Amino acid sequence: MSPAKLGPDGRRGWIVPVGGAEEKISDQRILKRFAEIAGGADAVIAVIPTASELPDTGPRYQALFEELGAGEAYWLPFFDRADAENDGLVTQLERATGVFFTGGNQLRIATILGGTPVAKLVRRLSADGAIVGGTSAGAAILPEHMIAHGASGASPTAGMVQLSPGLGLTNRVVVDQHFRQRDRLGRLLTALAYNPFAIGLGLDEDTGAFIDPDAVLHVVGSGAVTVVDVSQLGHSSIADTPQGAPICMTNVRLHLLPHGATFDLHHRTATPPPG
Amino acid sequence: MSPAKLGPDGRRGWIVPVGGAEEKISDQRILKRFAEIAGGADAVIAVIPTASELPDTGPRYQALFEELGAGEAYWLPFFDRADAENDGLVTQLERATGVFFTGGNQLRIATILGGTPVAKLVRRLSADGAIVGGTSAGAAILPEHMIAHGASGASPTAGMVQLSPGLGLTNRVVVDQHFRQRDRLGRLLTALAYNPFAIGLGLDEDTGAFIDPDAVLHVVGSGAVTVVDVSQLGHSSIADTPQGAPICMTNVRLHLLPHGATFDLHHRTATPPPG
Repeated sequence: MSPAKLGPDGRRGWIVPVGGAEEKISDQRILKRFAEIAGGADAVIAVIPTASELPDTGPRYQALFEELGAGEAYWLPFFDRADAENDGLVTQLERATGVFFTGGNQLRIATILGGTPVAKLVRRLSADGAIVGGTSAGAAILPEHMIAHGASGASPTAGMVQLSPGLGLTNRVVVDQHFRQRDRLGRLLTALAYNPFAIGLGLDEDTGAFIDPDAVLHVVGSGAVTVVDVSQLGHSSIADTPQGAPICMTNVRLHLLPHGATFDLHHRTATPPPG
Repeated sequence: MSPAKLGPDGRRGWIVPVGGAEEKISDQRILKRFAEIAGGADAVIAVIPTASELPDTGPRYQALFEELGAGEAYWLPFFDRADAENDGLVTQLERATGVFFTGGNQLRIATILGGTPVAKLVRRLSADGAIVGGTSAGAAILPEHMIAHGASGASPTAGMVQLSPGLGLTNRVVVDQHFRQRDRLGRLLTALAYNPFAIGLGLDEDTGAFIDPDAVLHVVGSGAVTVVDVSQLGHSSIADTPQGAPICMTNVRLHLLPHGATFDLHHRTATPPPG
C-alpha cells in the first residue's frame, strides 16, 4: 500500500482530502475546483460511494459534478468485496481522470476495497496523474495511515485514537476531518505521537487540502486546515504512558491556514494567502 | 515510511523478524544464521537496543554476534531523539552490513527513531542490501504497519488491537511475536481485518522469519511461523462491529510452518520442509 510507482510522464496526480460537509448549494468552490483540475469539459469523474449506506449518495455527487462543469461523471456501486473483484465494474474505473470518495465510514472503504483490484487501480490512476480526493471518510482513507476511530478533546491521551491502513496514495500526511467541529486536535496529535514522521492535517468542514504534484498543499474553502508538524519533536512519551493518561509531546509546530494559504509538504514551510 | 527506493544493484537486503526469546546459549541457530547472511567473517553488525531499558542489552548482543562468527559487532546508544539526530552516532551506523533491533517496547523505537536520520539510514541500508532484523519489539517495528498494543485471545474482536506506523522496511506483512506463547491469533486477525492487503506473520518464540530479497520467507528455529493470508477474504465486518464484539471474517487461509519450511510472499504459496 505504499504509493505506486510513477507512470512514464513522472507526474503524480493531485490528492484532495476534504473535511466533510462541503458546500453543495451556494458556494461550491471545493467541488468546482476538483472538477476543473480533473479536466473541466474533458473531465471524467468516477464517484465511489462505498463509505455510505445511503442509496442516493452516488447519484447526488454525479449530478453535482455534472452541474459544476465536468465533461462526464458517473458512480460505481462497489458495495462489497465481490463488486470490487467484478471485472465489468472495475473496468469502468479505468478511464477516470478524477476519482472521488464520498463520506460515510472509512472502515467500509478499507474493508471492502482493501487488497482488491479497485484499490490497486485507484493507486495506479493517481500515480499516472489522475486527481483523487474524498470528503470526510473519503478523506481519511487516502493516505497510508488512517485514523479509524478516536475520541474528542484537545489534549493527546494514550489510547484515544486507533490507526489502520488506508489506500496509501501518500505517506506524507495523516488526515483528520470535521476537525474544529468535533474537537479533534488531541486525537491527531496522538496519532502523530506514535511515530513522528508524518505531517498531520486537521481539516475543518467545507475545507479541502488540494495537494499538487509537487507536494504543495493549497487550502480551499470556508474553514481552515490545521497543519501539525512534528519534525522538531523533542520527546514523545506515548511508549511509557498508560492508556487514558495524557501524553507528553514537546516542540510541536502548528499552522492554521485559511483559504488561499499554501503549505509545502516537502520543505515544511507555510505561506499565508496573498495579501 | 514506504520502502526506500532500491540501490544501484537492485537487490534489497534480507528482513528478519524474530518472535522473541531466541536461544542464546545452546542452539543459537537464529542469531548464527543472521551473522552468516550479514557476511560472516566480513560482517559488520550494528545492534540497536532502543526498545530496551536494560543497560546490558546492547553489550550482550554485541558479544553474542562476535561469538557466533561475525567479523565485527557493536551497539549504538540511541536512547532519545537527540541521540538519533547526533551526527557522530548516526555516522557509525553507515558501514553496517547488518542491523539488529533488540526486544523491549516497540513504541520506544517508533517514538525515539521515527522521522529521524537513524530511521532513514536503516531504510537506506536495507534498500542497498544490508540485512535488517530484530526480536520481539525489534520484529514488530520492521514493517510499515505495526501492532502497538493488543489483547490476548484466539478470536478477533473489534478494538482488541492498536496499529501504528513502523519503520516501513516492507509493506507485505504485519508481524506479531510471542505468538503461541501469548495467544495472539485474534489480535493478528483483527489487525488484518481493517484492510486485507497485508499478509500476517505470527512468530513463535525462538523462531525467525528470514525474508530473502526475492520475498521468500524461510522459517528458522524451534517454533513455527503462522502465515495468515486474507487475499481471498470474502467479508470483514469490522466497519460495522461495536468495540468489544466479535468480528466476522470469511475465507481466511492459515499456514503453520516449522523450521525449514518456506513461504513465497509474492505468489502466496507455502512449501513444507524438504522431506
